[in-house]
Amino acid sequence: MASQQQFMDYVEQHQEDFIDRLRRAVAIPSVSSDPNHRPDVFRMGEFLIDELKALGASVETRDPGKQDFHGQLTLDLPPVVLATVGDDPAKKTILVYGHYDVQPALKEDGWTTDPFVLVEDDKQRLIGRGSSDDKGPVLGWINVVEAHKKLGLEMPVNLKFCLEGMEESGSEGLEAIIEDEADKYFKDVDAVCISDNYWLGTTKPCLTYGLRGVSYFHLTVKGPAADLHSGVFGGTIHEPMTDLFALMSKLVQPDGKILVPGIYDQVRPVTSEEEATYQSIAFDLSDLQSAVGNKTNIHEDAISVLQHRWRFPSLSLHGVEGAFYNPGDKTVVPAQVVGKFSIRTVPDMEPKKITELVVKYVTDEFNKLNSKNTMVIKCSHDGNHWLSSPNHPNYVAAAKAVETVFNVKPDLTREGGSIPVTLCFQDALKKNVLLLPMGRGDDGAHSINEKLDRSNYVQGIKLLGVYLHEVSDVDLENKQ
Amino acid sequence: MASQQQFMDYVEQHQEDFIDRLRRAVAIPSVSSDPNHRPDVFRMGEFLIDELKALGASVETRDPGKQDFHGQLTLDLPPVVLATVGDDPAKKTILVYGHYDVQPALKEDGWTTDPFVLVEDDKQRLIGRGSSDDKGPVLGWINVVEAHKKLGLEMPVNLKFCLEGMEESGSEGLEAIIEDEADKYFKDVDAVCISDNYWLGTTKPCLTYGLRGVSYFHLTVKGPAADLHSGVFGGTIHEPMTDLFALMSKLVQPDGKILVPGIYDQVRPVTSEEEATYQSIAFDLSDLQSAVGNKTNIHEDAISVLQHRWRFPSLSLHGVEGAFYNPGDKTVVPAQVVGKFSIRTVPDMEPKKITELVVKYVTDEFNKLNSKNTMVIKCSHDGNHWLSSPNHPNYVAAAKAVETVFNVKPDLTREGGSIPVTLCFQDALKKNVLLLPMGRGDDGAHSINEKLDRSNYVQGIKLLGVYLHEVSDVDLENKQ
Repeated sequence: MASQQQFMDYVEQHQEDFIDRLRRAVAIPSVSSDPNHRPDVFRMGEFLIDELKALGASVETRDPGKQDFHGQLTLDLPPVVLATVGDDPAKKTILVYGHYDVQPALKEDGWTTDPFVLVEDDKQRLIGRGSSDDKGPVLGWINVVEAHKKLGLEMPVNLKFCLEGMEESGSEGLEAIIEDEADKYFKDVDAVCISDNYWLGTTKPCLTYGLRGVSYFHLTVKGPAADLHSGVFGGTIHEPMTDLFALMSKLVQPDGKILVPGIYDQVRPVTSEEEATYQSIAFDLSDLQSAVGNKTNIHEDAISVLQHRWRFPSLSLHGVEGAFYNPGDKTVVPAQVVGKFSIRTVPDMEPKKITELVVKYVTDEFNKLNSKNTMVIKCSHDGNHWLSSPNHPNYVAAAKAVETVFNVKPDLTREGGSIPVTLCFQDALKKNVLLLPMGRGDDGAHSINEKLDRSNYVQGIKLLGVYLHEVSDVDLENKQ
Repeated sequence: MASQQQFMDYVEQHQEDFIDRLRRAVAIPSVSSDPNHRPDVFRMGEFLIDELKALGASVETRDPGKQDFHGQLTLDLPPVVLATVGDDPAKKTILVYGHYDVQPALKEDGWTTDPFVLVEDDKQRLIGRGSSDDKGPVLGWINVVEAHKKLGLEMPVNLKFCLEGMEESGSEGLEAIIEDEADKYFKDVDAVCISDNYWLGTTKPCLTYGLRGVSYFHLTVKGPAADLHSGVFGGTIHEPMTDLFALMSKLVQPDGKILVPGIYDQVRPVTSEEEATYQSIAFDLSDLQSAVGNKTNIHEDAISVLQHRWRFPSLSLHGVEGAFYNPGDKTVVPAQVVGKFSIRTVPDMEPKKITELVVKYVTDEFNKLNSKNTMVIKCSHDGNHWLSSPNHPNYVAAAKAVETVFNVKPDLTREGGSIPVTLCFQDALKKNVLLLPMGRGDDGAHSINEKLDRSNYVQGIKLLGVYLHEVSDVDLENKQ
C-alpha cells in the first residue's frame, strides 16, 4: 500500500511530463487508413519502441505482411510491437494491448484546433487526434513503467505489451500473429488487460465485461443484364429494387423488433442477478437523448436502453449498393442491387445458426414474391459476442484499483459494439480478458475535437498502475 | 409527285455528300455535360449556322444565359439556333426541332472505334457519337433544303429551325425561349415536327403520338442528429432506414402494381379503337427480352408489354441518398435518408392529383409506423404526359410520306419515357406536334458504338423531305 501511494504521488507530481509524452505522440499523424500517412504509422511504432527501450524493456516486432489497398496499391503493414518488462518467474505476467494508429482528422472537418497538436483548453481537456483513442492509454502503461523505474520501485508483475498500428483499419494480420504467438511470446501470460474503450458516461469509471457480436449480410437481387431506363422499361419487368425493398422491409420493425423467426430463441434470459447490476449504473435516458441529439429513443427507461444496447440483439439496415445515391433525380432502374444489413448478436446466439435462420427466412420471403429476378443472401462476415464475468479475480483486482484511485465502485458495463481483439486474445490464450477504459464516453474518439480530460489521463495512469499492484495479489486461477 | 421523285432520286444519288456532312458534324465532340467540351458545343452550333447560311437561310440565335455547373463553375450556355428558310405567306410554316449536343463518349468505355470519327462498317452502319442522336436527323433537314436548292425546286413549306445545344443536359433555358418566342419567331408556325426518337424495332418506321409523363418523389426520413454506430445505438433508437424501407416497400408490388390508392382511377380505359392499333405493330416479346438481356418480363404477350410501357403508369424505386452505398461492409446508422422513386404517368392522370395521392398515402403509412422519426414526402419535379392523335392531318401527312418512301404503313407508337420539349411546343404554340424518327430502336443512342444505318439516314432524308411535301397539302386546321 505504501508503494501504491508512492506511485500515485509520483504520477500526480509528474503529470506535465506525461502530458508532454502524449503531446509528442499526438504530433505523429499515424492515420492507418490513409496511404500518405502510412510512413507516419511506422514512425509512431518507432516512437513507442524507443520509449520502451529507454525504460529497459526488451522489444521485438512482428511483421503482419502486406496490405492490398482496395486493389490499387500494395502497402507495408506497420509492425506489431511486442515488449517485455520483467521476466521474474515468481511474478504473474499481465499482457496489455493497445494501438498506435489513429482515425483520420483534418482541420477542415470542423476541428477547432490543429488535430495533430495537443492543446489543453480551459476545461483541462487535452484535445488532439488519438489523445483518448488510443495513444493516451498506451502511454499510460509506459508511464506506469517509468514511474516505477524512477522511484526505484519493483514492478508488481511482469508486463508484456502487444501494440498494433492497424486497429482503425481492421487490425489486418493481427489475429494470425496472436494465434501464432499464443504458445510462444504470450506463453506465460496470466491475464490480459485492454484499455481501448470508454466510460459509459462522463463521471464514473467502469469495467467492461461484455461486447455484442455482429453478423453482416449482403442481400443481392439481380434482374436485367444492365441498368435500364425506367421510362422505357418501367411496368414491364421485375425490378430488383422492388424485390429488395420488399425483403428488407420484412427484417425489422420500426420499434426494433427483429422479424427473423427464431432469432430471439437463442437469447439468454435476464437473471435477477444480472438485473441487479443495472440498478447502480450511472446512466439516464437523457444520456442517450443527448448522444442521439433528440428524443427518437425506443425505450423510456434507462435500464431498458442499456439492456437493448448490451444484451439484446438488434438489426440495422445500412444501405444499398448499385442503386442511385447522389442528390438530385435520376430515373435509372438498377440491374443489380445489394442490400446491406447487420445483426448485433448476444449470448447465446451462434453466428452459424443466425446465418441459417436469416438465409432460410429471406429465401422463403423471396419465394413468396413470385419474382423472376434472382436473389442471393449471404453472411459477409461475422464476429462472435464476448462475455466475461465481473466476478473473475482479474475484474475484482481492477474494481479494487478503481476504488483506490477514484473512491467509488466502478460501473459494470458491457458494450453494444465489437472489439474483435478481445475475443481473439481470450480464444487464443485461454486467459481472462479485462476491458479497463481510461477516457470518458464523450471523448469523441472517431469524430472531431477528440479529447482526453487531464484528470482522466492522470487518474488513468494511476488506475493502470494500481491495477497491476492489485492483480499481482489475486489468485487468477480461481476462476469464478 | 414528280418533284417528290426528283427529290428522292437526288438524295439517293448524293448520299455520299450527306454522309460527308454527317462525318464533319460527328467530328465535333459537342458533349454538353462535360465543361471541357463546352467550346466544342459552341463550335457545333457555329457549324450548323454556317451550313444553314450557305443554303440561304436567315439565322438568328438566342442566348439561354449562364449555367451553374454543380455549384463549381459558371458556364456559358450554347445558343439556341433559330433559322428560317422561306417566308412565303401563301405557304404553311413547319417548325423542326433538333439538338446539336451529344452524350459523352470515350474509346475506353468500350467503343470499337474512335467515337468522334464516323466510320461505316460492313453492315453499312454509320458508327459515331451523335450519328443517330441527333446529328443525323438535324442534318437530315439541312440536306432536304440543300437538295431542293441544288435541284432548283421550290420548298413546299416555309421551314423554321429550332436547334439547341443542351438537350442531353436538361435543355437548360430552352423552355423560356420557346415561350418567349411563341408569338414572335414562332408566330406563323402551323405544325411542329421533331425527329429525335427511334423506331420501336429495327425493321419498320413509326410515327410517335404519345409519351408518358414522370413525377419524381423524395421521401425523407430524419432521425438522430448525426450518423450513429449501430453497435452502440442499434436497438435503442428509431432508425430512419427501417422506416424508409417500410414505406418504400408499400409503394409497388413485385408484379408492378402500384399500391397508392386512387392512382389507377385516373387512367383512361383502353378503347377498342386503341386496342386495334396494337395488332399490326412490329414487336415481339423476344424484342423486350433481348433488350433486357433475360426473361424477367412481367407480362407474357407483346401487346401487354407495349401497353404497360406506353399507356399504363409504373412506379420505380431508384435509390437512397444518405445511406451506405459502397462495396464492402459498413455498420453505420444513417441519420437522414432520402428515398427516391418516380411514377410514370399517362392520360388522364394529373400531376397535382398524383402528388396529393402519394403524399396522403405515404403520410398515412408513416403514421401507422409509430416512429419518433420525422418524415417529409414531396414531389421534386413533374412533367406531364403528352398525347397527340395519329388521325391529325400532321400525322396523316407523315404516314403518307412513310408509305411513299418505305412502301409500308408506319407503326403508330407511343413511348414510355418523356421528351419534355414536345409538350412545351404544344403548350406554347398551341399547334400539333409530330414525332418522326429517323433511327432504329437498336441505335444505342446513349451507349457505346452509337450508329445510324446508312439506309435509315438516306431513307430518313427522303422521309423528312416528302413529309414537308405532304404536309403542305393537308388542312392543318382540320383537327380531328
